[in-house]
Amino acid sequence: MSERFFIPSPPLHGRVVLTGDEARHLVRVLRGQVGDDVVVFAGEGVEWPAQITRLGRDEAELETGPARHDLPAGGPAVSIAVALPKGERQKWLVEKLTELGAAQLIPLETERGVAEATPAARERLRRGVIEACKQCGRNRLMAIGEPLSVAAALADMPPGSRVVIADPGGPPLDPRGLAAGATNLLALVGPEGGFTVAEIAAAEQAGAIRVSLGPHILRIETAAIALAARLAGDG
Amino acid sequence: MSERFFIPSPPLHGRVVLTGDEARHLVRVLRGQVGDDVVVFAGEGVEWPAQITRLGRDEAELETGPARHDLPAGGPAVSIAVALPKGERQKWLVEKLTELGAAQLIPLETERGVAEATPAARERLRRGVIEACKQCGRNRLMAIGEPLSVAAALADMPPGSRVVIADPGGPPLDPRGLAAGATNLLALVGPEGGFTVAEIAAAEQAGAIRVSLGPHILRIETAAIALAARLAGDG
Repeated sequence: MSERFFIPSPPLHGRVVLTGDEARHLVRVLRGQVGDDVVVFAGEGVEWPAQITRLGRDEAELETGPARHDLPAGGPAVSIAVALPKGERQKWLVEKLTELGAAQLIPLETERGVAEATPAARERLRRGVIEACKQCGRNRLMAIGEPLSVAAALADMPPGSRVVIADPGGPPLDPRGLAAGATNLLALVGPEGGFTVAEIAAAEQAGAIRVSLGPHILRIETAAIALAARLAGDG
Repeated sequence: MSERFFIPSPPLHGRVVLTGDEARHLVRVLRGQVGDDVVVFAGEGVEWPAQITRLGRDEAELETGPARHDLPAGGPAVSIAVALPKGERQKWLVEKLTELGAAQLIPLETERGVAEATPAARERLRRGVIEACKQCGRNRLMAIGEPLSVAAALADMPPGSRVVIADPGGPPLDPRGLAAGATNLLALVGPEGGFTVAEIAAAEQAGAIRVSLGPHILRIETAAIALAARLAGDG
């Protein structure tokens, strides 16, 4: 695979200029030379082969070839609404959900949640998405949604959605049954202390199905990653 | 959940003495007192409620109650044979596989693998398993196998086993079809550079099924965790 670079908007007239971190990475770390082949993507499900035509100290001009469009996704779009874990675990969560093909991560505001989805935190998550996309060959960015409560996340889902809420007391998840006929799947994952009884009840009342993910107490990011693997993988 | 402590062998006559790190954690970090309730497990699928009866500087004597045996596992035992990733990613791999209920992690020796499964590395993995078991409520340790080649890992599986090998060119994984009638599942995950053609061929000849895990290039630990989630979860 050629080295991949993220561009904030699609190339214009077969030309694009890399700036900032992307340019520095190409120029200073990879020591790219005029004529080298790379790939660029703007996060919308398209990539372009590109060739370096001019190098500056902190920018690189590229000539791009014909757009290559991703195949349409097979199954329903998977959103993971999760009470953010702390520190490094946030970084891991984003990297793994991106690789596994989740369409969207929604920071979930819960009664017992501890990590706040500040604008700075969400910007950090977005940068993590871009890095993971560059590495794993994904051309459409995983969206980082607005922070939502359980009720708001459920209200926000389009018709044709199915929702599960991770609950150690629930029945086992049946990914195939859940995905059949659905256009969107949403999985809710609570904080370390778990959802409150009221949060579970509100979710169930809005149509969410409680699901258990096995006999052990999963960390937040483990539950979210397992749900993404099972829902996106079986789609 | 009460605080959980690992003991190297089951209690004898309703009594056990914590020593080393486990004792230091109880005495110095948690500041346990005589009469406090904890739980101990020896990694064999059983736990015991226990009460502190005597405290020393670096040891703690506990009186244990009646053994609580785990329910028998539902599906086939899942082994993940994986070319170890480097550094922190090893720690994450072990933590997640333990939480998700994999029975065994086998360090896979591959042509393109980079991280060696030295005795010290395997001892570190074992300590990671114990920490994750304490945290997630698992009473049976995930085994850390001897390092094996692809051929040896396949030869080592008991009758009634089914084997998959992660290969971006393979058909999608069907966890339910694979698990039907199997007593053991083995999933092979290659190094960053992928398996060689010869390794894939050897695995297929020995009965392994190639499976793809989606359109993106997954990191080693992402592929291993996704396989554990899908194979142990659907069992």
